[in-house]
Amino acid sequence: MTVLIVGSIGLDTIETPFGKKKDILGGSAIHASISASFHAKTAMIGVAGSDFPKEHFDFLKSKNIDVSGIQILPGETFRWSGYYEYDMNQAHTKDTKLNVISLFDPRVPDKLKDAEYVFLANLDPKLQLKVLDQLTKPKLVAMDTMNFWIETKREALEKVIKRADIVLMNDGEVRQFMETPNIPVAAAKLLKLGVKTVIIKKGEHGALLFSDGVHFSAPAYPQDILRDPTGAGDSFAGGFIGYLAKTGDISQANIRRAIIIGSTMASFNVEDFSLDRMKSLRPEEISARVEEFRRFTEF
Amino acid sequence: MTVLIVGSIGLDTIETPFGKKKDILGGSAIHASISASFHAKTAMIGVAGSDFPKEHFDFLKSKNIDVSGIQILPGETFRWSGYYEYDMNQAHTKDTKLNVISLFDPRVPDKLKDAEYVFLANLDPKLQLKVLDQLTKPKLVAMDTMNFWIETKREALEKVIKRADIVLMNDGEVRQFMETPNIPVAAAKLLKLGVKTVIIKKGEHGALLFSDGVHFSAPAYPQDILRDPTGAGDSFAGGFIGYLAKTGDISQANIRRAIIIGSTMASFNVEDFSLDRMKSLRPEEISARVEEFRRFTEF
Repeated sequence: MTVLIVGSIGLDTIETPFGKKKDILGGSAIHASISASFHAKTAMIGVAGSDFPKEHFDFLKSKNIDVSGIQILPGETFRWSGYYEYDMNQAHTKDTKLNVISLFDPRVPDKLKDAEYVFLANLDPKLQLKVLDQLTKPKLVAMDTMNFWIETKREALEKVIKRADIVLMNDGEVRQFMETPNIPVAAAKLLKLGVKTVIIKKGEHGALLFSDGVHFSAPAYPQDILRDPTGAGDSFAGGFIGYLAKTGDISQANIRRAIIIGSTMASFNVEDFSLDRMKSLRPEEISARVEEFRRFTEF
Repeated sequence: MTVLIVGSIGLDTIETPFGKKKDILGGSAIHASISASFHAKTAMIGVAGSDFPKEHFDFLKSKNIDVSGIQILPGETFRWSGYYEYDMNQAHTKDTKLNVISLFDPRVPDKLKDAEYVFLANLDPKLQLKVLDQLTKPKLVAMDTMNFWIETKREALEKVIKRADIVLMNDGEVRQFMETPNIPVAAAKLLKLGVKTVIIKKGEHGALLFSDGVHFSAPAYPQDILRDPTGAGDSFAGGFIGYLAKTGDISQANIRRAIIIGSTMASFNVEDFSLDRMKSLRPEEISARVEEFRRFTEF
């Protein structure tokens, strides 16, 4: 099954204790799509500026990603710059320039409108809705967001949330959104909004699933190599939806396995800046790490 | 097998978003021993002042705890007062009065000197060493500490650590002690000091085990009832060592099970102030929750 992913395409300037990189490939749709492409045929919806380097397109195509839904508009590509301190759990934004994203009117190519597995990566919830409106028979819609949209477009965000099957947020976001510091309580409140399944990404502390009467706790990989956490959440989501699409199975048990696949993909992505680790990543490394995850939790 | 536990006996004054309580039963040895007593015969080493209420002794005895190693000295019992803000992950100390602990010269009663399962709960590392020196054939020594000893008695603390089989610390402490924000890196550094097994307690994020080439990640209970986190780490440790003593099995697999028992005991303890939840806790509630833990992690 094809996975359809919409989100940002960006050029990031990032500083971590391990170095500083300027205008490197990033964006929520990029991280999610590359990660998904290891598991299923992936198609991207997004917008880039005329300055977007051709080599990045070549990289997407080398992963067999359908780029027919990417628009190139005159102007500059979305840019984010930020830094991480010694404790790399928290990204600090220095500057965000929407650039061509502010002109973005997402159009899903006809041949992709019947996509069944959909990931609405972090993006203006109004644009996420525009994509959803063009789909004819989504089977599973997962979505992500960020604090900025919680603060500025709560109403549109709640609309997306109500139409999604699975809501992914990080722990800080779900606490902020539901106005409680207690994660299980926040998750319960989110389920009451009509969401079927909530997955909370906690970075170095793993991920949690909450669904009606069901709870699952996934460990984090013991990450001694951690150079750049940017895109970890998107890699997680991409691996997650990619695995569901590959297997065509959205049972509770398979959703749990998909979370482990997502965690595995994220654990590789943060080992180097941008998508650099994903460029060398081999399928057998993925399966070996999934087996490690299994051993981490057996008791 | 009998578990021997040394640590503080205290009267706590605690404020959380759920209320304020004055001079309630607390202390590391108390929380650990009550928790251990659900699993194995438990003996305590500690000191209380002449003001220590008789009802608390009665409670210990009702749990079949051997109190022959508790000294009563003239003066006041150790007191800690602190508060938790809305986000209850972090205890804030308002005041600590060592009182009779400053006079404490721990003596292990003859009949307890051959104890095989030992937990050195949070206490001055010099006192922890004094207890260790009196034991004739410990089979498994676990120890805990806190930031105060890391900052003020590092040398004595390192001596205890080198003699312990299992070091328990919370995530903040191990980061501080090993001077790195990365938990797997901090754990690796701690193992290099000669520790065989490190268990890192992360409160709402569960617990991690690191040992030579082995890693285990235990989930936290999704704690929607959380009234007072005080003593969670000690309850964890008490359940952990109590289960090991009960089963007499210190294999890697059983240590993992003991971590789940510890997590279970801690999850009950934080449901109410002081030891109040432990007073009503029934063995069948413990086994039911252990089964829940198993379901949280299956994939």
